[in-house]
Amino acid sequence: MSFPKNIFNSHPPEDGNFFLGMKRILGFKPKKLKIYKKAFLHRSANKKDKDGNPMNYERLEFLGDAMLGTIISRYLYNEVPEGDEGYLTKMRSKIVSREHLNELGKDLNLIEFVESRIPKTHFGDNIHGNVFEALVGAVYLDRGYDYCVKFIGKRVIEPYVDIEQLEGKVISYKSLLIEWCQKKKKHFDYDVYEDTGKDALKHFAVRLTIGGNIVAKARATSKKKAEERASKRAYFALQSKIDKN
Amino acid sequence: MSFPKNIFNSHPPEDGNFFLGMKRILGFKPKKLKIYKKAFLHRSANKKDKDGNPMNYERLEFLGDAMLGTIISRYLYNEVPEGDEGYLTKMRSKIVSREHLNELGKDLNLIEFVESRIPKTHFGDNIHGNVFEALVGAVYLDRGYDYCVKFIGKRVIEPYVDIEQLEGKVISYKSLLIEWCQKKKKHFDYDVYEDTGKDALKHFAVRLTIGGNIVAKARATSKKKAEERASKRAYFALQSKIDKN
Repeated sequence: MSFPKNIFNSHPPEDGNFFLGMKRILGFKPKKLKIYKKAFLHRSANKKDKDGNPMNYERLEFLGDAMLGTIISRYLYNEVPEGDEGYLTKMRSKIVSREHLNELGKDLNLIEFVESRIPKTHFGDNIHGNVFEALVGAVYLDRGYDYCVKFIGKRVIEPYVDIEQLEGKVISYKSLLIEWCQKKKKHFDYDVYEDTGKDALKHFAVRLTIGGNIVAKARATSKKKAEERASKRAYFALQSKIDKN
Repeated sequence: MSFPKNIFNSHPPEDGNFFLGMKRILGFKPKKLKIYKKAFLHRSANKKDKDGNPMNYERLEFLGDAMLGTIISRYLYNEVPEGDEGYLTKMRSKIVSREHLNELGKDLNLIEFVESRIPKTHFGDNIHGNVFEALVGAVYLDRGYDYCVKFIGKRVIEPYVDIEQLEGKVISYKSLLIEWCQKKKKHFDYDVYEDTGKDALKHFAVRLTIGGNIVAKARATSKKKAEERASKRAYFALQSKIDKN
Protein backbone atom coordinates (compact mmCIF):
# COMPACT_ATOMS: atom_id res chain seq x y z
CA MET A 1 0.00 0.00 0.00
CA SER A 2 1.39 3.38 -0.96
CA PHE A 3 0.93 6.52 1.09
CA PRO A 4 -1.46 9.18 -0.13
CA LYS A 5 0.19 12.27 -1.50
CA ASN A 6 -0.44 14.63 1.41
CA ILE A 7 0.57 12.57 4.35
CA PHE A 8 0.63 15.58 6.68
CA ASN A 9 -2.31 17.67 5.74
CA SER A 10 -1.99 20.39 8.38
CA HIS A 11 -3.02 23.16 6.01
CA PRO A 12 -6.62 23.52 4.97
CA PRO A 13 -7.32 22.96 1.29
CA GLU A 14 -7.78 26.12 -0.73
CA ASP A 15 -11.17 27.68 -0.02
CA GLY A 16 -12.34 27.33 -3.60
CA ASN A 17 -11.65 23.61 -3.72
CA PHE A 18 -13.10 23.15 -0.27
CA PHE A 19 -16.27 24.98 -1.28
CA LEU A 20 -16.68 22.80 -4.37
CA GLY A 21 -15.94 19.65 -2.41
CA MET A 22 -18.56 20.55 0.18
CA LYS A 23 -21.10 21.46 -2.47
CA ARG A 24 -20.61 18.09 -4.13
CA ILE A 25 -21.09 16.20 -0.86
CA LEU A 26 -23.95 18.32 0.49
CA GLY A 27 -25.94 18.72 -2.70
CA PHE A 28 -26.37 22.44 -1.92
CA LYS A 29 -24.14 25.45 -1.37
CA PRO A 30 -22.54 25.84 2.02
CA LYS A 31 -22.80 29.40 3.37
CA LYS A 32 -20.42 29.68 6.30
CA LEU A 33 -17.36 27.73 5.15
CA LYS A 34 -15.74 28.23 8.56
CA ILE A 35 -18.24 25.93 10.24
CA TYR A 36 -17.55 23.17 7.71
CA LYS A 37 -13.81 23.54 8.17
CA LYS A 38 -14.32 22.96 11.86
CA ALA A 39 -16.17 19.72 11.03
CA PHE A 40 -12.91 18.35 9.59
CA LEU A 41 -10.55 19.67 12.22
CA HIS A 42 -8.97 16.85 14.19
CA ARG A 43 -7.93 17.52 17.80
CA SER A 44 -4.31 16.72 16.89
CA ALA A 45 -4.20 19.98 14.87
CA ASN A 46 -4.35 21.73 18.26
CA LYS A 47 -6.30 24.74 17.07
CA LYS A 48 -7.95 27.23 19.44
CA ASP A 49 -10.75 29.73 18.91
CA LYS A 50 -10.36 33.45 19.67
CA ASP A 51 -11.29 32.84 23.34
CA GLY A 52 -8.66 30.14 23.70
CA ASN A 53 -11.11 27.22 23.67
CA PRO A 54 -9.84 24.09 21.89
CA MET A 55 -11.31 23.92 18.40
CA ASN A 56 -11.98 20.60 16.67
CA TYR A 57 -14.86 18.59 15.27
CA GLU A 58 -15.88 16.90 18.51
CA ARG A 59 -18.50 19.41 19.62
CA LEU A 60 -20.06 19.39 16.15
CA GLU A 61 -20.04 15.60 16.30
CA PHE A 62 -22.07 15.78 19.54
CA LEU A 63 -24.62 18.01 17.81
CA GLY A 64 -24.73 16.02 14.58
CA ASP A 65 -25.15 12.71 16.38
CA ALA A 66 -28.29 14.02 18.12
CA MET A 67 -29.62 15.58 14.92
CA LEU A 68 -29.08 12.40 12.92
CA GLY A 69 -30.90 10.33 15.55
CA THR A 70 -33.87 12.68 15.45
CA ILE A 71 -34.18 12.78 11.69
CA ILE A 72 -33.92 9.00 11.41
CA SER A 73 -36.54 8.72 14.18
CA ARG A 74 -38.90 10.92 12.24
CA TYR A 75 -38.29 8.91 9.07
CA LEU A 76 -39.01 5.61 10.82
CA TYR A 77 -42.07 7.02 12.58
CA ASN A 78 -43.61 7.85 9.21
CA GLU A 79 -42.32 4.90 7.29
CA VAL A 80 -43.35 2.14 9.70
CA PRO A 81 -46.74 3.03 11.19
CA GLU A 82 -47.12 -0.48 12.55
CA GLY A 83 -43.78 -0.52 14.43
CA ASP A 84 -43.92 -0.06 18.18
CA GLU A 85 -41.42 1.92 20.27
CA GLY A 86 -39.11 -1.07 20.73
CA TYR A 87 -39.04 -1.80 17.01
CA LEU A 88 -38.36 1.82 16.11
CA THR A 89 -35.53 2.02 18.64
CA LYS A 90 -33.94 -1.15 17.28
CA MET A 91 -34.14 0.00 13.68
CA ARG A 92 -32.71 3.39 14.53
CA SER A 93 -29.72 1.76 16.27
CA LYS A 94 -29.05 -0.29 13.16
CA ILE A 95 -29.15 2.74 10.89
CA VAL A 96 -26.94 4.96 13.03
CA SER A 97 -24.59 2.16 14.12
CA ARG A 98 -20.91 3.03 14.29
CA GLU A 99 -20.19 0.48 11.58
CA HIS A 100 -22.80 1.92 9.26
CA LEU A 101 -21.69 5.53 9.75
CA ASN A 102 -18.07 4.57 9.18
CA GLU A 103 -18.99 2.92 5.89
CA LEU A 104 -20.97 5.96 4.87
CA GLY A 105 -18.20 8.42 5.72
CA LYS A 106 -15.71 6.21 3.89
CA ASP A 107 -17.89 6.05 0.78
CA LEU A 108 -18.06 9.85 0.75
CA ASN A 109 -14.28 9.91 1.21
CA LEU A 110 -14.63 12.56 3.90
CA ILE A 111 -11.14 11.85 5.14
CA GLU A 112 -9.68 13.77 2.21
CA PHE A 113 -10.80 17.01 3.96
CA VAL A 114 -9.54 16.14 7.45
CA GLU A 115 -6.99 18.52 8.89
CA SER A 116 -4.69 16.84 11.38
CA ARG A 117 -1.11 16.37 12.48
CA ILE A 118 -1.50 12.62 12.39
CA PRO A 119 -0.93 10.84 9.07
CA LYS A 120 -4.31 9.80 7.71
CA THR A 121 -3.18 6.23 7.35
CA HIS A 122 -2.84 6.09 11.15
CA PHE A 123 -6.49 6.78 11.86
CA GLY A 124 -8.83 3.98 12.85
CA ASP A 125 -12.17 3.36 11.18
CA ASN A 126 -14.14 5.62 13.50
CA ILE A 127 -12.82 8.82 12.00
CA HIS A 128 -15.09 8.31 8.98
CA GLY A 129 -18.29 8.14 11.03
CA ASN A 130 -17.23 10.84 13.48
CA VAL A 131 -16.51 13.30 10.72
CA PHE A 132 -19.81 12.46 9.05
CA GLU A 133 -21.66 13.29 12.29
CA ALA A 134 -19.71 16.52 12.63
CA LEU A 135 -20.70 17.41 9.08
CA VAL A 136 -24.37 16.92 9.97
CA GLY A 137 -23.84 19.29 12.91
CA ALA A 138 -22.23 21.83 10.58
CA VAL A 139 -25.13 21.66 8.12
CA TYR A 140 -27.52 22.28 10.99
CA LEU A 141 -25.63 25.33 12.24
CA ASP A 142 -25.08 26.72 8.76
CA ARG A 143 -28.43 26.11 7.08
CA GLY A 144 -30.86 24.94 9.77
CA TYR A 145 -33.06 21.98 10.37
CA ASP A 146 -34.70 21.61 6.96
CA TYR A 147 -31.39 21.41 5.12
CA CYS A 148 -30.27 18.83 7.63
CA VAL A 149 -33.31 16.72 6.75
CA LYS A 150 -32.47 17.13 3.07
CA PHE A 151 -28.82 16.19 3.55
CA ILE A 152 -29.60 13.11 5.62
CA GLY A 153 -32.27 12.09 3.13
CA LYS A 154 -29.79 12.28 0.28
CA ARG A 155 -26.73 10.83 1.99
CA VAL A 156 -28.12 8.37 4.52
CA ILE A 157 -31.71 7.36 3.88
CA GLU A 158 -31.83 7.19 0.10
CA PRO A 159 -28.61 5.25 -0.52
CA TYR A 160 -28.41 3.12 2.63
CA VAL A 161 -31.68 2.68 4.44
CA ASP A 162 -33.69 -0.29 3.38
CA ILE A 163 -36.15 -1.36 5.99
CA GLU A 164 -36.67 -4.85 4.58
CA GLN A 165 -32.95 -5.46 4.58
CA LEU A 166 -32.54 -4.02 8.10
CA GLU A 167 -35.29 -6.31 9.31
CA GLY A 168 -33.31 -9.21 7.90
CA LYS A 169 -36.09 -10.07 5.46
CA VAL A 170 -33.76 -9.46 2.54
CA ILE A 171 -30.24 -10.68 3.22
CA SER A 172 -28.82 -10.01 -0.21
CA TYR A 173 -30.28 -8.30 -3.24
CA LYS A 174 -27.63 -9.96 -5.37
CA SER A 175 -29.00 -13.41 -4.57
CA LEU A 176 -32.60 -12.27 -5.15
CA LEU A 177 -31.59 -10.93 -8.52
CA ILE A 178 -29.59 -13.97 -9.59
CA GLU A 179 -32.47 -16.23 -8.59
CA TRP A 180 -34.86 -14.21 -10.71
CA CYS A 181 -32.50 -14.20 -13.74
CA GLN A 182 -32.04 -17.97 -13.53
CA LYS A 183 -35.77 -18.58 -13.28
CA LYS A 184 -36.42 -16.31 -16.25
CA LYS A 185 -33.44 -17.76 -18.14
CA LYS A 186 -31.91 -14.31 -18.56
CA HIS A 187 -28.18 -13.83 -18.91
CA PHE A 188 -26.66 -11.51 -16.32
CA ASP A 189 -23.22 -10.07 -15.85
CA TYR A 190 -21.51 -8.05 -13.12
CA ASP A 191 -18.82 -6.02 -14.80
CA VAL A 192 -16.47 -4.84 -12.03
CA TYR A 193 -13.47 -2.56 -12.36
CA GLU A 194 -11.22 -0.75 -9.94
CA ASP A 195 -11.70 2.98 -10.06
CA THR A 196 -9.32 4.94 -7.88
CA GLY A 197 -9.66 8.20 -9.76
CA LYS A 198 -8.49 11.15 -7.68
CA ASP A 199 -9.78 9.69 -4.42
CA ALA A 200 -7.52 8.74 -1.56
CA LEU A 201 -9.61 5.59 -1.15
CA LYS A 202 -9.77 2.69 -3.57
CA HIS A 203 -13.19 2.38 -5.18
CA PHE A 204 -14.89 -0.33 -7.17
CA ALA A 205 -17.40 0.38 -9.86
CA VAL A 206 -19.92 -2.13 -11.13
CA ARG A 207 -22.11 -2.30 -14.19
CA LEU A 208 -24.91 -4.85 -14.01
CA THR A 209 -26.16 -6.14 -17.36
CA ILE A 210 -29.26 -8.29 -17.68
CA GLY A 211 -30.25 -9.72 -21.07
CA GLY A 212 -27.82 -7.41 -22.80
CA ASN A 213 -29.08 -4.17 -21.18
CA ILE A 214 -27.24 -2.20 -18.53
CA VAL A 215 -29.81 -2.00 -15.70
CA ALA A 216 -27.76 -0.48 -12.88
CA LYS A 217 -24.42 1.03 -11.95
CA ALA A 218 -22.88 1.46 -8.51
CA ARG A 219 -19.67 2.42 -6.80
CA ALA A 220 -18.37 1.43 -3.35
CA THR A 221 -15.22 0.76 -1.36
CA SER A 222 -15.34 -3.00 -1.96
CA LYS A 223 -16.28 -5.21 -4.90
CA LYS A 224 -18.89 -7.02 -2.82
CA LYS A 225 -20.57 -3.80 -1.68
CA ALA A 226 -20.62 -2.35 -5.18
CA GLU A 227 -22.24 -5.53 -6.54
CA GLU A 228 -24.81 -5.54 -3.77
CA ARG A 229 -25.60 -1.88 -4.31
CA ALA A 230 -26.00 -2.34 -8.06
CA SER A 231 -28.23 -5.35 -7.41
CA LYS A 232 -30.40 -3.36 -5.06
CA ARG A 233 -30.79 -0.56 -7.60
CA ALA A 234 -31.64 -3.08 -10.29
CA TYR A 235 -34.08 -4.80 -7.95
CA PHE A 236 -36.01 -1.59 -7.36
CA ALA A 237 -35.89 -0.69 -11.03
CA LEU A 238 -37.24 -4.12 -11.96
CA GLN A 239 -39.45 -4.52 -8.88
CA SER A 240 -42.79 -4.62 -10.63
CA LYS A 241 -41.52 -7.37 -12.94
CA ILE A 242 -39.93 -9.38 -10.13
CA ASP A 243 -42.94 -9.17 -7.83
CA LYS A 244 -45.25 -10.45 -10.53
CA ASN A 245 -43.17 -13.54 -11.11
CA MET B 1 -54.81 10.71 50.78
CA SER B 2 -58.15 10.94 48.97
CA PHE B 3 -58.73 9.68 45.43
CA PRO B 4 -59.06 12.20 42.64
CA LYS B 5 -62.57 12.63 41.28
CA ASN B 6 -62.19 10.74 37.99
CA ILE B 7 -60.54 7.54 39.02
CA PHE B 8 -61.34 5.82 35.70
CA ASN B 9 -60.79 8.34 33.01
CA SER B 10 -61.37 6.18 29.96
CA HIS B 11 -63.23 8.90 28.06
CA PRO B 12 -61.35 11.79 26.48
CA PRO B 13 -62.07 15.21 27.96
CA GLU B 14 -64.42 17.36 25.92
CA ASP B 15 -62.60 18.76 22.87
CA GLY B 16 -63.07 22.36 23.97
CA ASN B 17 -61.53 21.79 27.37
CA PHE B 18 -58.78 19.70 25.86
CA PHE B 19 -57.95 22.44 23.38
CA LEU B 20 -57.77 25.06 26.13
CA GLY B 21 -55.72 22.77 28.34
CA MET B 22 -53.25 22.14 25.53
CA LYS B 23 -53.06 25.82 24.66
CA ARG B 24 -52.23 26.66 28.27
CA ILE B 25 -49.47 24.06 28.43
CA LEU B 26 -48.03 24.70 24.97
CA GLY B 27 -48.18 28.48 24.95
CA PHE B 28 -49.62 28.39 21.41
CA LYS B 29 -52.65 26.93 19.66
CA PRO B 30 -52.56 23.25 18.78
CA LYS B 31 -53.78 22.57 15.25
CA LYS B 32 -54.40 18.85 14.95
CA LEU B 33 -55.98 17.95 18.29
CA LYS B 34 -56.00 14.27 17.31
CA ILE B 35 -52.20 14.09 17.55
CA TYR B 36 -52.22 15.58 21.05
CA LYS B 37 -54.91 13.16 22.16
CA LYS B 38 -52.66 10.33 21.08
CA ALA B 39 -49.90 11.78 23.28
CA PHE B 40 -52.08 11.05 26.33
CA LEU B 41 -53.39 7.66 25.28
CA HIS B 42 -52.11 4.93 27.55
CA ARG B 43 -51.71 1.42 26.12
CA SER B 44 -54.24 0.10 28.64
CA ALA B 45 -56.96 1.98 26.75
CA ASN B 46 -56.41 -0.62 23.99
CA LYS B 47 -57.19 1.70 21.10
CA LYS B 48 -56.36 0.85 17.49
CA ASP B 49 -55.98 3.04 14.41
CA LYS B 50 -57.97 2.53 11.21
CA ASP B 51 -55.43 -0.05 10.00
CA GLY B 52 -55.66 -2.03 13.21
CA ASN B 53 -52.29 -0.89 14.61
CA PRO B 54 -52.22 -0.37 18.38
CA MET B 55 -52.57 3.32 19.17
CA ASN B 56 -51.00 4.85 22.26
CA TYR B 57 -48.41 7.46 23.20
CA GLU B 58 -45.36 5.20 22.99
CA ARG B 59 -44.41 5.94 19.39
CA LEU B 60 -44.74 9.68 20.02
CA GLU B 61 -42.59 9.23 23.11
CA PHE B 62 -39.87 7.70 20.91
CA LEU B 63 -40.02 10.71 18.61
CA GLY B 64 -40.21 13.30 21.40
CA ASP B 65 -37.32 11.78 23.31
CA ALA B 66 -35.05 12.18 20.26
CA MET B 67 -36.32 15.70 19.56
CA LEU B 68 -35.79 16.79 23.16
CA GLY B 69 -32.23 15.45 23.13
CA THR B 70 -31.44 17.38 19.96
CA ILE B 71 -32.88 20.67 21.13
CA ILE B 72 -31.09 20.44 24.47
CA SER B 73 -27.88 19.58 22.58
CA ARG B 74 -28.25 22.68 20.45
CA TYR B 75 -28.91 24.80 23.53
CA LEU B 76 -25.81 23.48 25.33
CA TYR B 77 -23.65 23.84 22.21
CA ASN B 78 -24.46 27.55 22.09
CA GLU B 79 -24.56 28.20 25.79
CA VAL B 80 -21.27 26.55 26.76
CA PRO B 81 -18.69 27.27 24.03
CA GLU B 82 -15.90 26.08 26.30
CA GLY B 83 -17.47 22.67 27.06
CA ASP B 84 -16.04 19.66 25.25
CA GLU B 85 -18.04 16.72 23.91
CA GLY B 86 -17.83 14.83 27.21
CA TYR B 87 -19.04 17.81 29.21
CA LEU B 88 -21.94 18.46 26.80
CA THR B 89 -23.00 14.80 26.93
CA LYS B 90 -22.96 14.79 30.74
CA MET B 91 -24.98 17.98 31.01
CA ARG B 92 -27.53 16.74 28.50
CA SER B 93 -28.01 13.51 30.49
CA LYS B 94 -28.69 15.55 33.60
CA ILE B 95 -31.26 17.74 31.88
CA VAL B 96 -33.16 14.91 30.20
CA SER B 97 -32.83 12.48 33.12
CA ARG B 98 -35.87 10.37 33.89
CA GLU B 99 -36.13 12.00 37.31
CA HIS B 100 -36.06 15.48 35.84
CA LEU B 101 -38.64 14.76 33.15
CA ASN B 102 -40.94 13.14 35.68
CA GLU B 103 -40.78 16.22 37.88
CA LEU B 104 -41.47 18.43 34.87
CA GLY B 105 -44.45 16.38 33.70
CA LYS B 106 -45.79 16.34 37.26
CA ASP B 107 -45.48 20.11 37.59
CA LEU B 108 -47.47 20.54 34.39
CA ASN B 109 -50.01 18.08 35.79
CA LEU B 110 -50.08 16.26 32.46
CA ILE B 111 -51.66 13.23 34.06
CA GLU B 112 -55.00 15.00 34.17
CA PHE B 113 -55.26 14.44 30.40
CA VAL B 114 -54.19 10.78 30.36
CA GLU B 115 -56.73 8.37 28.95
CA SER B 116 -56.37 4.88 30.41
CA ARG B 117 -58.21 1.96 31.94
CA ILE B 118 -55.88 1.95 34.90
CA PRO B 119 -56.71 4.22 37.82
CA LYS B 120 -54.30 7.14 37.73
CA THR B 121 -53.30 6.52 41.31
CA HIS B 122 -51.84 3.18 40.19
CA PHE B 123 -49.30 4.68 37.80
CA GLY B 124 -45.66 4.92 38.75
CA ASP B 125 -43.65 8.11 38.47
CA ASN B 126 -42.49 7.47 34.89
CA ILE B 127 -45.85 8.21 33.36
CA HIS B 128 -45.21 11.95 33.92
CA GLY B 129 -41.96 12.02 31.96
CA ASN B 130 -43.17 9.62 29.28
CA VAL B 131 -46.23 11.70 28.55
CA PHE B 132 -44.11 14.84 28.46
CA GLU B 133 -41.86 13.27 25.81
CA ALA B 134 -44.92 12.16 23.83
CA LEU B 135 -46.21 15.73 23.98
CA VAL B 136 -42.92 16.98 22.50
CA GLY B 137 -43.38 14.44 19.68
CA ALA B 138 -46.92 15.68 19.11
CA VAL B 139 -45.78 19.32 18.92
CA TYR B 140 -43.21 18.31 16.33
CA LEU B 141 -45.73 16.48 14.15
CA ASP B 142 -48.37 19.17 14.52
CA ARG B 143 -46.34 22.38 14.22
CA GLY B 144 -42.82 21.40 13.16
CA TYR B 145 -39.33 21.88 14.48
CA ASP B 146 -39.42 25.59 15.32
CA TYR B 147 -42.45 25.25 17.56
CA CYS B 148 -40.75 22.35 19.25
CA VAL B 149 -37.78 24.59 20.04
CA LYS B 150 -40.19 27.20 21.40
CA PHE B 151 -42.07 24.70 23.54
CA ILE B 152 -38.92 23.16 25.01
CA GLY B 153 -37.51 26.64 25.65
CA LYS B 154 -40.60 27.64 27.59
CA ARG B 155 -41.26 24.40 29.46
CA VAL B 156 -37.83 22.88 29.97
CA ILE B 157 -34.98 25.32 29.52
CA GLU B 158 -36.40 28.51 30.99
CA PRO B 159 -37.91 27.08 34.18
CA TYR B 160 -35.53 24.19 34.90
CA VAL B 161 -32.19 24.48 33.21
CA ASP B 162 -29.56 26.24 35.23
CA ILE B 163 -26.08 25.36 34.12
CA GLU B 164 -24.39 26.55 37.30
CA GLN B 165 -26.72 24.43 39.38
CA LEU B 166 -26.31 21.41 37.09
CA GLU B 167 -22.56 21.75 37.41
CA GLY B 168 -22.98 21.62 41.17
CA LYS B 169 -21.57 25.12 41.58
CA VAL B 170 -24.82 26.32 43.14
CA ILE B 171 -26.37 23.73 45.42
CA SER B 172 -29.23 25.81 46.72
CA TYR B 173 -30.49 29.24 45.75
CA LYS B 174 -32.39 29.39 49.02
CA SER B 175 -29.17 29.26 51.02
CA LEU B 176 -27.49 31.86 48.77
CA LEU B 177 -30.42 34.17 49.27
CA ILE B 178 -30.65 33.71 53.05
CA GLU B 179 -26.92 34.34 53.34
CA TRP B 180 -27.26 37.58 51.40
CA CYS B 181 -30.27 38.75 53.48
CA GLN B 182 -28.45 38.06 56.73
CA LYS B 183 -25.36 39.88 55.57
CA LYS B 184 -27.44 42.87 54.45
CA LYS B 185 -29.61 42.67 57.61
CA LYS B 186 -32.76 42.39 55.51
CA HIS B 187 -35.83 40.65 56.85
CA PHE B 188 -37.05 37.80 54.61
CA ASP B 189 -40.08 35.57 54.73
CA TYR B 190 -41.21 32.48 52.79
CA ASP B 191 -44.98 32.49 52.87
CA VAL B 192 -46.06 28.96 51.90
CA TYR B 193 -49.59 27.67 51.41
CA GLU B 194 -51.09 24.53 50.00
CA ASP B 195 -52.90 25.15 46.76
CA THR B 196 -54.74 22.16 45.36
CA GLY B 197 -57.13 24.16 43.20
CA LYS B 198 -58.67 21.98 40.51
CA ASP B 199 -55.50 19.96 39.98
CA ALA B 200 -55.31 16.24 40.61
CA LEU B 201 -51.91 16.86 42.25
CA LYS B 202 -51.26 18.75 45.47
CA HIS B 203 -49.36 21.97 44.83
CA PHE B 204 -47.53 24.38 47.09
CA ALA B 205 -47.31 28.05 46.38
CA VAL B 206 -44.70 30.36 47.84
CA ARG B 207 -44.39 34.11 48.13
CA LEU B 208 -40.94 35.36 49.02
CA THR B 209 -40.82 38.74 50.74
CA ILE B 210 -37.55 40.63 51.34
CA GLY B 211 -37.56 43.88 53.30
CA GLY B 212 -41.34 44.09 53.03
CA ASN B 213 -41.50 43.67 49.22
CA ILE B 214 -42.71 40.58 47.41
CA VAL B 215 -39.75 39.70 45.16
CA ALA B 216 -40.84 36.32 43.76
CA LYS B 217 -43.62 33.77 43.61
CA ALA B 218 -43.44 30.11 42.68
CA ARG B 219 -45.50 26.96 42.63
CA ALA B 220 -44.36 23.33 42.78
CA THR B 221 -45.35 19.87 43.96
CA SER B 222 -43.44 20.17 47.25
CA LYS B 223 -42.87 22.97 49.76
CA LYS B 224 -39.10 22.59 49.40
CA LYS B 225 -39.17 22.80 45.60
CA ALA B 226 -41.47 25.82 45.62
CA GLU B 227 -39.15 27.64 48.06
CA GLU B 228 -36.11 26.80 45.97
CA ARG B 229 -37.81 27.93 42.80
CA ALA B 230 -38.92 31.22 44.34
CA SER B 231 -35.38 31.75 45.68
CA LYS B 232 -33.92 31.15 42.25
CA ARG B 233 -36.29 33.66 40.68
CA ALA B 234 -35.48 36.20 43.38
CA TYR B 235 -31.78 35.50 42.93
CA PHE B 236 -31.89 36.32 39.24
CA ALA B 237 -34.10 39.36 39.84
CA LEU B 238 -31.66 40.64 42.45
CA GLN B 239 -28.51 39.32 40.79
CA SER B 240 -26.86 42.64 40.06
CA LYS B 241 -27.30 43.63 43.71
CA ILE B 242 -26.10 40.30 45.05
CA ASP B 243 -23.04 40.12 42.82
CA LYS B 244 -21.89 43.56 43.87
CA ASN B 245 -21.96 42.66 47.56
